[in-house]
Amino acid sequence: MKFSKWHGLGNDFIFVNGFEKAPINLQQLAETLCDRHFGIGADGLVLVLPSTQADFRMQIFNSDGSEAQMCGNATRCFSRYVHTNGLTKKNELTIETLAGIIHARLVGDGSEVKVNLGEPKLKRSEIPVSGDSASTAINVPITINDITYNATCVSTGVPHCVIFVDSFQGLDWQNIGKKIEIHPLFPEKTNVEFIQVINRSEMIMKVWERGAGVTLACGTGASASLVAGVLTNKTDRKAVVHLEGGDLQIEWEEATGHVLMTGPAVESFVGDISIENSVATD
Amino acid sequence: MKFSKWHGLGNDFIFVNGFEKAPINLQQLAETLCDRHFGIGADGLVLVLPSTQADFRMQIFNSDGSEAQMCGNATRCFSRYVHTNGLTKKNELTIETLAGIIHARLVGDGSEVKVNLGEPKLKRSEIPVSGDSASTAINVPITINDITYNATCVSTGVPHCVIFVDSFQGLDWQNIGKKIEIHPLFPEKTNVEFIQVINRSEMIMKVWERGAGVTLACGTGASASLVAGVLTNKTDRKAVVHLEGGDLQIEWEEATGHVLMTGPAVESFVGDISIENSVATD
Repeated sequence: MKFSKWHGLGNDFIFVNGFEKAPINLQQLAETLCDRHFGIGADGLVLVLPSTQADFRMQIFNSDGSEAQMCGNATRCFSRYVHTNGLTKKNELTIETLAGIIHARLVGDGSEVKVNLGEPKLKRSEIPVSGDSASTAINVPITINDITYNATCVSTGVPHCVIFVDSFQGLDWQNIGKKIEIHPLFPEKTNVEFIQVINRSEMIMKVWERGAGVTLACGTGASASLVAGVLTNKTDRKAVVHLEGGDLQIEWEEATGHVLMTGPAVESFVGDISIENSVATD
Repeated sequence: MKFSKWHGLGNDFIFVNGFEKAPINLQQLAETLCDRHFGIGADGLVLVLPSTQADFRMQIFNSDGSEAQMCGNATRCFSRYVHTNGLTKKNELTIETLAGIIHARLVGDGSEVKVNLGEPKLKRSEIPVSGDSASTAINVPITINDITYNATCVSTGVPHCVIFVDSFQGLDWQNIGKKIEIHPLFPEKTNVEFIQVINRSEMIMKVWERGAGVTLACGTGASASLVAGVLTNKTDRKAVVHLEGGDLQIEWEEATGHVLMTGPAVESFVGDISIENSVATD
């Protein structure tokens, strides 16, 4: 099976063209292919598919085999993939995902992609966060290992729980993130972002992704964090988010209410794998 | 640049054919290509080269860019690689490495490889271990974090420090291994193996590799551990070693004094990478 390997700020994906022949047993396949020693190695598996509602359909699976609704970094890679592989010549694209139709646009020399994530969802029922369904979840106390954090919850296609911290010094954020992911407050679990605000237009983010654990970058997470920064009056509506793997530009447009994420997408290599050979020997 | 990705029990390598055109800046290239998010991802980079002394020459670099003398799992993969890629039809091969010429043989249906690692080196000057150069280093006390361990040191092409433990329960072996690697006893640093003996023909091994850290398997380490087991009268001359990534059969032949390692080698996938694209964006 032919594939190509892409990354957006180090958040990496195996891309498979499902136009002609889509692979089967996708959950098992994602787990097998994403294994970094016995498989190809990636944070996720992305299928490029035809759509009746948009230019393309993106189906994405995490490395644990679970299906993701959508992923910002993968969407940027997707937008370049369809160009690089001659599936379209359009610079403006619509992409069907489980989180709705996403609009994306190649910008600059075409190596960067601006993704319109639409209006963030702030109501508990929409994110989802348990509790009064119509209310928001801004500065909600959440206690992990006897320490209480203020969480601001936002969906930008997938649920995010944003925690602002003064510093990462001595903070075991991986462990806290792992516990928040499965906290009862989140009926569908959640991604967790830890944010240190540098100034009103700049922040540092570390992320624990639902179903994937620590990753170098999360585009919807950076977007949700900017929204949380605005909601808690810590940032302006436009900011640079410094992630482990690089920077993203995020804007929450006042006029439209849409969140726009701009950043790079890179093809690492192309490959061919015999699916039988990708399972662990024992 | 075309490559193929192989693994021996999950210890994984990027293979590049250097017969026609060998890449340059190999240390930098290894570091870039072995990166699991921005590159291809592997424990090491292996170059397949012609030799004037043997059938082939194997040059191997760790993921940190340092050159390795030799590697047991890579040697098994190498033996199958030259067959799969039509470079030889011989089942018995000689492979030139920085640790000397290695003899290897495809066994069974050709999916397993028996590697003859020659006579293990036991003198301190040969491993190397500091201290009286002609003496061995068997049950040498080594103190890490105020706890003293008995180390038995053996070279099977590369230096190994074998620590027998009663159990892995509560043992922070990664941390201990990291410190032993750079202990002053080892002028060229060392690989570190932690061994739990199940019975005289079976043991469990965990490994901290010099220049690579935790890996799923280390063939020369499993071989050195069997030798250490014989030297300390904990095992017979033939045993199965259970590694994180699977099993190896190790024998220290009485007649020849040679160490033989038998295990699988698997091609995961083939690929093509633009070297410029494999560097991290920032």
